[in-house]
Amino acid sequence: MNKSAISPTRQEDFPGWYQEVIKAADLAEMAHVRGCMVIKPWGYGIWERIRDLLDKEIKARGHENAYFPLFIPLSYIQKEADHVEGFAKEMAVVTHHRLEQRDGHLVPGGELEEPIVVRPTSEAIIGASMSQWIQSYRDLPLLLNQWANVVRWEMRPRVFLRTSEFLWQEGHTAHSTQQEAMDETIEMFGVYESFAQEVLCVPVVAGEKPPSERFPGADRSFSIEAMMQDGKALQAGTSHFLGQNFAKSADIKFLDHTGELCYAYTTSWGVSTRLIGALVMTHGDDDGLCVPPRVAPHQVVISPITRGEPVDADVLAYARKCSQGLFGSTYCSEPLRVKVDDRLIKSVDKKWQWLKRGVPVLVEIGPRDLEAGTVTFRKRTSFYQADTMKLDDFIVQVPNLLGEVQDELLDRARSNLESNILTDEIDLSAARAYLDQGNGFLLAKWCGDTACEVAFKEQAATIRCLPRDRKAKGTVCVVCSKPATTDAIFAQSY
Amino acid sequence: MNKSAISPTRQEDFPGWYQEVIKAADLAEMAHVRGCMVIKPWGYGIWERIRDLLDKEIKARGHENAYFPLFIPLSYIQKEADHVEGFAKEMAVVTHHRLEQRDGHLVPGGELEEPIVVRPTSEAIIGASMSQWIQSYRDLPLLLNQWANVVRWEMRPRVFLRTSEFLWQEGHTAHSTQQEAMDETIEMFGVYESFAQEVLCVPVVAGEKPPSERFPGADRSFSIEAMMQDGKALQAGTSHFLGQNFAKSADIKFLDHTGELCYAYTTSWGVSTRLIGALVMTHGDDDGLCVPPRVAPHQVVISPITRGEPVDADVLAYARKCSQGLFGSTYCSEPLRVKVDDRLIKSVDKKWQWLKRGVPVLVEIGPRDLEAGTVTFRKRTSFYQADTMKLDDFIVQVPNLLGEVQDELLDRARSNLESNILTDEIDLSAARAYLDQGNGFLLAKWCGDTACEVAFKEQAATIRCLPRDRKAKGTVCVVCSKPATTDAIFAQSY
Repeated sequence: MNKSAISPTRQEDFPGWYQEVIKAADLAEMAHVRGCMVIKPWGYGIWERIRDLLDKEIKARGHENAYFPLFIPLSYIQKEADHVEGFAKEMAVVTHHRLEQRDGHLVPGGELEEPIVVRPTSEAIIGASMSQWIQSYRDLPLLLNQWANVVRWEMRPRVFLRTSEFLWQEGHTAHSTQQEAMDETIEMFGVYESFAQEVLCVPVVAGEKPPSERFPGADRSFSIEAMMQDGKALQAGTSHFLGQNFAKSADIKFLDHTGELCYAYTTSWGVSTRLIGALVMTHGDDDGLCVPPRVAPHQVVISPITRGEPVDADVLAYARKCSQGLFGSTYCSEPLRVKVDDRLIKSVDKKWQWLKRGVPVLVEIGPRDLEAGTVTFRKRTSFYQADTMKLDDFIVQVPNLLGEVQDELLDRARSNLESNILTDEIDLSAARAYLDQGNGFLLAKWCGDTACEVAFKEQAATIRCLPRDRKAKGTVCVVCSKPATTDAIFAQSY
Repeated sequence: MNKSAISPTRQEDFPGWYQEVIKAADLAEMAHVRGCMVIKPWGYGIWERIRDLLDKEIKARGHENAYFPLFIPLSYIQKEADHVEGFAKEMAVVTHHRLEQRDGHLVPGGELEEPIVVRPTSEAIIGASMSQWIQSYRDLPLLLNQWANVVRWEMRPRVFLRTSEFLWQEGHTAHSTQQEAMDETIEMFGVYESFAQEVLCVPVVAGEKPPSERFPGADRSFSIEAMMQDGKALQAGTSHFLGQNFAKSADIKFLDHTGELCYAYTTSWGVSTRLIGALVMTHGDDDGLCVPPRVAPHQVVISPITRGEPVDADVLAYARKCSQGLFGSTYCSEPLRVKVDDRLIKSVDKKWQWLKRGVPVLVEIGPRDLEAGTVTFRKRTSFYQADTMKLDDFIVQVPNLLGEVQDELLDRARSNLESNILTDEIDLSAARAYLDQGNGFLLAKWCGDTACEVAFKEQAATIRCLPRDRKAKGTVCVVCSKPATTDAIFAQSY
């Protein structure tokens, strides 16, 4: 019974294991369209939970959702030089607006006077609206958010991690002062940090990006970096202080209190379906996925064990009774999401399927439970240990069981993160050796010189961020041994 | 005080009035990108309500949400001949995947081997997944839904009604029998009909489309047709029985109970941001928009009347008390959506703004209310008649007030619809004269011959649908006077 369900295991081949979990958990698959993915119902259900919960946090801070065009004229995206340079290599370009028959073949027709690109991000197009909507300081701050698809052409796509099209949320705000825009940048950065940890059970190292890793066009970029079970870093969310760069390129000006015309300060921040990849590589095990209860499409699945016998109807009725008993119960202030899986397939197949999909609590109900008035259940975090409880007790206990799973996943992930950050003061060759193995993060000192960063990048790993809450030992740069100016997290990354 | 806020009025220039209401209510605006729109927060808030409420109905019937690629390879969309012919003239075509510098200009680079189109609808791409996911009758029915953006290039765009990009929901299902697929088509058609009526207060005539107006590739199409205040029809939702057409072109086959390999039967159905256009043209008046309470982003706005006096702080506190008093109350099983508008602008400006935006209940609170323990409020449906009530009573009454507004909007719209369907048995020239004026629908007999339909279309109006629940008088076709085979709704349309 302890035979692992996913082959290869994490130990054997982590990237191979990742692909297999995605498949076994029925989360998504690559489409035949180059680099695009199909998000299947179980994966999309997780995204819906992420969207709804994060949306509440965003709105609670005064942001309003809006929707801007998918297409950006070339002339718009050209305005910010760094921005266009950063994205030019991966943009889908629309050049025609119809198909025509020619020699029995369909070919593009109706060439556009100006090509348009499919948005890789929306600073350029939202900036154009902001410049029209903002007249005076009374119109500020302007706090917008958009849930949308974006396209960044990928030559080496990996489902959820790098796909040509992905879904995300992108916040865009404009402010009258630098301080206020900076505060906004930091506040949303903090929202991402606590969302990752509290909702997704993904602990992160939060910090500023080094200059070379900034968002194209940003003055400062901040990211949360999660550690996957192979020790690599995954950037799970970013928040950018754009200074007046986009305000100048898009002409976002306002009259201040004194009647002077000033450029606004803008920010942008986003998380994407990549979070699902983070979730898989943080919580998956050799039996498949574990979905944190806060974002599980079904938190409890009840599987009636039927064998084509007369008692089946009673077992099914009892399963329904269990489900109905949970109606009105809540976990984290939300109604429980409970499913009775009454498909006429073998119970054991259902069991393995829900194990692989990572449902937090699986209940199996058979004739013996019916007789005894009990239920038999398994938490995904200790799946091979079935428990039995009186039905009435179980109904009361479900929110606690979900809380246990949520806590266990966070504890496990936190322990993995903390025990794989090397904080010893080591020299360059030891640092290289450590990072070459790709077994974790290195917290070390850095002189702040991009040359050191670039040199190190070519050899081993990148600076993921300058951690906000962690102090490295020592006083000199791990790369060049000159006096250090900051702490940095070095790691291999996705 | 009775001066109309929108110029032109509906009577003076209905299309001009529509544009002005959209602008005055801050719903949306056309973007500089050809034919695309920007949906502003108030408009997007309405869409979010539509999405969430309809999503519940869709899921309650066993459908699961998923997400499929934005891009469709040319080879996929070519498979169904009618389908591609129907959409070829309005498709955005991606031909390149990067931008390159050439002579100081950015130009498309990286030409694709096969052009891809931006989805105008997703039958072709979802069919490709269905053909892989479906093996046997056990995999059926497959009930999917997607919330997404789609692109149909528009030469004459009108905000919400015809835009190059719009947001929608598209259901796609596969079934083992013709009957089951037909039942699904009709069921979702019924969901749209009751959603339009009960949620949006938009009564409709529901019926089958005549053959010439079918969805490209469908065997049968059904639509709900709403009547705008100018008497024109607006198609507000469609449901299609696709027979085995897409199953054959996309190779969606299954092994039936007897082990025989059969083609599945598929359906598709959708509603879009067009519904917001329907809502504007159904409920707007010469003062702006009226938003039905079920979909209003704020159902109650509380505006404290402050004049820069010491009492202001108490007035504001009293407004907050009123808002807090509504916390925990519900309307239609959902928490009330209440906003305190404490912006430091003139109260009268706030009043006109919320009138134009169509908030269902506007509360104004001034020093006198504070003293008397009352609130002064206006329902949007009788805005010029302010009422005063004790605060405690008001708090209890709000759900009823919202119910009144919802009912009044539906009654008004229903009365407009019913009183503008001509049911007299009239001859062709009278029919033409009636429809030329564009003042409503004509319910009449039709022989079922497309030639009659086409002839009439060139002269006056189209057949909107063959109404399910209405019987025309007479026995002969209104166009050719030959024996009639069906009832039909003729009208000018959007």
